[in-house]
Amino acid sequence: MHWPLTRVGKAHRPGESESEDRPGGKKGLPGQAAAAFPEGESMENPGAPPAHAFSDADRSAVYQAIFSRRDVRGQFLPDPVPDDVLGRVLLAAHHAPSVGFMQPWNFLIVRAPIVKQRVHDVFCTANAEAERMFPDEKRAIYSHLKLQGIVDSPVNLCVTCDRSRSGPVVLGRTHMPAMDLYSSVCAVQNLWLAARAEGLGVGWVSIFHQQALQDALGIPHDIVPIAYLCVGWVSHFNDRPELEKAGWLPRLALADLLYYEQWGETRPAQAEPLSAALTDLQTAIHQQGTFPA
Amino acid sequence: MHWPLTRVGKAHRPGESESEDRPGGKKGLPGQAAAAFPEGESMENPGAPPAHAFSDADRSAVYQAIFSRRDVRGQFLPDPVPDDVLGRVLLAAHHAPSVGFMQPWNFLIVRAPIVKQRVHDVFCTANAEAERMFPDEKRAIYSHLKLQGIVDSPVNLCVTCDRSRSGPVVLGRTHMPAMDLYSSVCAVQNLWLAARAEGLGVGWVSIFHQQALQDALGIPHDIVPIAYLCVGWVSHFNDRPELEKAGWLPRLALADLLYYEQWGETRPAQAEPLSAALTDLQTAIHQQGTFPA
Repeated sequence: MHWPLTRVGKAHRPGESESEDRPGGKKGLPGQAAAAFPEGESMENPGAPPAHAFSDADRSAVYQAIFSRRDVRGQFLPDPVPDDVLGRVLLAAHHAPSVGFMQPWNFLIVRAPIVKQRVHDVFCTANAEAERMFPDEKRAIYSHLKLQGIVDSPVNLCVTCDRSRSGPVVLGRTHMPAMDLYSSVCAVQNLWLAARAEGLGVGWVSIFHQQALQDALGIPHDIVPIAYLCVGWVSHFNDRPELEKAGWLPRLALADLLYYEQWGETRPAQAEPLSAALTDLQTAIHQQGTFPA
Repeated sequence: MHWPLTRVGKAHRPGESESEDRPGGKKGLPGQAAAAFPEGESMENPGAPPAHAFSDADRSAVYQAIFSRRDVRGQFLPDPVPDDVLGRVLLAAHHAPSVGFMQPWNFLIVRAPIVKQRVHDVFCTANAEAERMFPDEKRAIYSHLKLQGIVDSPVNLCVTCDRSRSGPVVLGRTHMPAMDLYSSVCAVQNLWLAARAEGLGVGWVSIFHQQALQDALGIPHDIVPIAYLCVGWVSHFNDRPELEKAGWLPRLALADLLYYEQWGETRPAQAEPLSAALTDLQTAIHQQGTFPA
């Protein structure tokens, strides 16, 4: 913790203005210079939380969702997911950022066993092909991995992207045509984190021939299926990603993935406090299994 | 709130086992059947939180981050971002899901004014082209929108995707080749939500010719720039997306974006409780400006 817990016994509620809710915060008036730190505080006083920051407890909850989210394949329980819970995680998806505010997503909800089975068949065809692509040493691990919970999970969701949603010219997509696809991915990640907070597991299945998946769900070929998600309550969440636990690939050192000012420009930890901070954070996570927020 | 607040005055900390931390939770033992609801509870008792769910307060904090996150363009303050804060949001990005656990991202950190200015020049070229693409009635709005805070924000981050990171065959990318790009997008969204909890604004700038952006930052042409992010403390967060406020496009009704079992199959609210739940949630948000978690 980097600043003291300022609000004990008072839960922060969404939508409340942080400036009213947090001691030291104040509302800016027109013409009044804003400051990142509350009145009388500054970077000289590192004990003051920045304006608009969540409380320590709320900030920790956000990090908890991020760090304990898992791609769930084999831990689904058959219990139904209540509509209000499903509604909230879909609403979280709908509040993702979207390029030019085009909101290009649809959500196709699959609960019928016959439809799930059809999608499962599409997976099986692609997965048999995929397995043959790996070299021998990886194929042995691959064949033992459970890669989907299509039939096991009570709800499947196909998140799509309708590239024509708001006309041919989209603000922010004029020079990066993939931006609308990326918007639908942001919706998936919002849904995934909201689901984790609700206690719901989510698994993203991507081993499909796109056209076969579209045909199984009646999706027109100009609508892009971004993610096929298996959703349900779980027996447990793994403490680490399954592929990391299975020895498929290791977690990379984040400090090794940073460049400064130009691609390829690295800085040793002693010359760059950020690099040192990252190494400390990752060491703490590795040793304690918790995020030191 | 759908179930009572079970833990008063005790903050939930990331990494703590939910089953130890939440009354009613229990650890599953090998061979023991797991249940979605705590012992003695079931769907018959809707007052019981599901196992592994966050506390009400923690769940609300996650939704607060999702609903109050904004694409920030014009509200940046010049105050520096401390390394520990920047480190935490980068670590949140690094814990995004990635296809085949390939972690294809790099983070190029730009703080030097001369580099920011070069990127800003690349933006200006593309933006002048973009403006001309819009029909007259949209062009008037477009020309008044502030679309980036490249120079105003203290830190810029370019999040990339190295498609060759873990060899030619990637688990889960065999049939959907864009999955690695989507992984880097998930990293962006994690970073964005963590930043909101820290009180940091983030703006995603996408109006660039890709090659011009790569050249400005020395990025090889086979490395894909996914997102160019402006990061910094802010004077305020808008209560709604800027493009919604400016009348560019309206927020869509989520219930209209749902299909059931097959593409195009809709259900009226009276026939589908989920659709009714969504309409209620969106009406409450519209009227109260808060998320009714």
